[in-house]
Amino acid sequence: MGTIYGVGLGPGDQELMSVKSDRLLRTGKHVAFFRKAGRKGQARQIVNGMLRDDVIEFPMEYPVTTEIPLSDPRYNEILSAFYTEVTDHLIALAKSGEDVVVLCEGDPFFYGSFMHIYTRVKDHVPVEVVPAITGMSGAWTATGAPITWGDDVLTVLMGTLGEDKLVDHMAATDALVVMKIGTNFDKVVRALQTAGRYDDAWIVQFATMPKQTVTKLSEMTDKVTPYFSIIIVHGQGRRP
Amino acid sequence: MGTIYGVGLGPGDQELMSVKSDRLLRTGKHVAFFRKAGRKGQARQIVNGMLRDDVIEFPMEYPVTTEIPLSDPRYNEILSAFYTEVTDHLIALAKSGEDVVVLCEGDPFFYGSFMHIYTRVKDHVPVEVVPAITGMSGAWTATGAPITWGDDVLTVLMGTLGEDKLVDHMAATDALVVMKIGTNFDKVVRALQTAGRYDDAWIVQFATMPKQTVTKLSEMTDKVTPYFSIIIVHGQGRRP
Repeated sequence: MGTIYGVGLGPGDQELMSVKSDRLLRTGKHVAFFRKAGRKGQARQIVNGMLRDDVIEFPMEYPVTTEIPLSDPRYNEILSAFYTEVTDHLIALAKSGEDVVVLCEGDPFFYGSFMHIYTRVKDHVPVEVVPAITGMSGAWTATGAPITWGDDVLTVLMGTLGEDKLVDHMAATDALVVMKIGTNFDKVVRALQTAGRYDDAWIVQFATMPKQTVTKLSEMTDKVTPYFSIIIVHGQGRRP
Repeated sequence: MGTIYGVGLGPGDQELMSVKSDRLLRTGKHVAFFRKAGRKGQARQIVNGMLRDDVIEFPMEYPVTTEIPLSDPRYNEILSAFYTEVTDHLIALAKSGEDVVVLCEGDPFFYGSFMHIYTRVKDHVPVEVVPAITGMSGAWTATGAPITWGDDVLTVLMGTLGEDKLVDHMAATDALVVMKIGTNFDKVVRALQTAGRYDDAWIVQFATMPKQTVTKLSEMTDKVTPYFSIIIVHGQGRRP
């Protein structure tokens, strides 16, 4: 039987991929990746120029992204059917003896899409997860200041959370990372202001990539990129 | 002028270092690393077999670790003088035109020792930080289950925090990582029990390394390793 590899690509810079991910990508015959219909796919673009000339690509196109609200029961039904369909194909490949590399932006087990494949294939065929540098590591490195010192508490929040919950966690933590900002930008900004963390917040867009920008949130004038945007508030803990 | 590179080594497996860290380590003429007096040094051991034959090593030996409590003002004074002394040497090397690689376990800006060098050298010579896979990524990957789903909140806590603060954060989060456990093990276990998270907790020791162990915390019978131990509680968020 072949193995399904969930290969973490890291924050975007090809040099920041692990030696193991780099090797699996350059030698893999079958490469699968999620993308929005009609797009090249963010994960696929990260590995441009790295794949074998004779690679067999398997784009897994989301049947729905933001057209149906998360709260609609049809959202889960449609996505669930989609995951079953694509994993059936991956399992069939592995059972025929082929290894399959699945591209995962960031770290596969950290808010990744790969886990929806992982849970569906792990009891049927061998699967191996290759961890990677998270997008947030790329972002705090880009700010040129450590995210946590001493015994700072670090909290990671998704912009999709309710405003009250965002405020509570923002006020209770030392260091802070906010992801999935996109359409939640105004809500996240209000929550940071209410929690008293707005003036210390940075926004990093396209961390480690050529288009990288690092800006104090309070000084941002451009519109935020819906994707690849991470807000950072540094901890200020003990330091000799 | 030379550059001081803060090179993240990741969780311990050499194959999980980034392509960039791997290259800097294999080509670096000057390699500096922290260690406890009389020890080989954890970071140095991770790169065994990777350094140039003619490498010039600069071990930076902590003058104090646990002999003086953190609360004693002498602790900060002694450490501060130590950091000044070693960074004077690194700055002198860089000013003489030599690049210096500083080994950093995990990710340099995430609870790392490198930041104490970074803040002291960054205004004097060029310095570049290479992010890496965190120890906690290695740990949650080892558990074979995703750490966060959907809009789970992730909180990272140090075992050195007070018990009440540990309990409050453990109760308020979805997913949880606890590091710096060592001598704080009993306190951390009590806090997990009080917060109702003990039964779902895993402990990973030596993640990604040959001695790796993954155990439900409630089923652990051996004594915990003071170093390289990470407690994980997985989030249970939205999943189609």
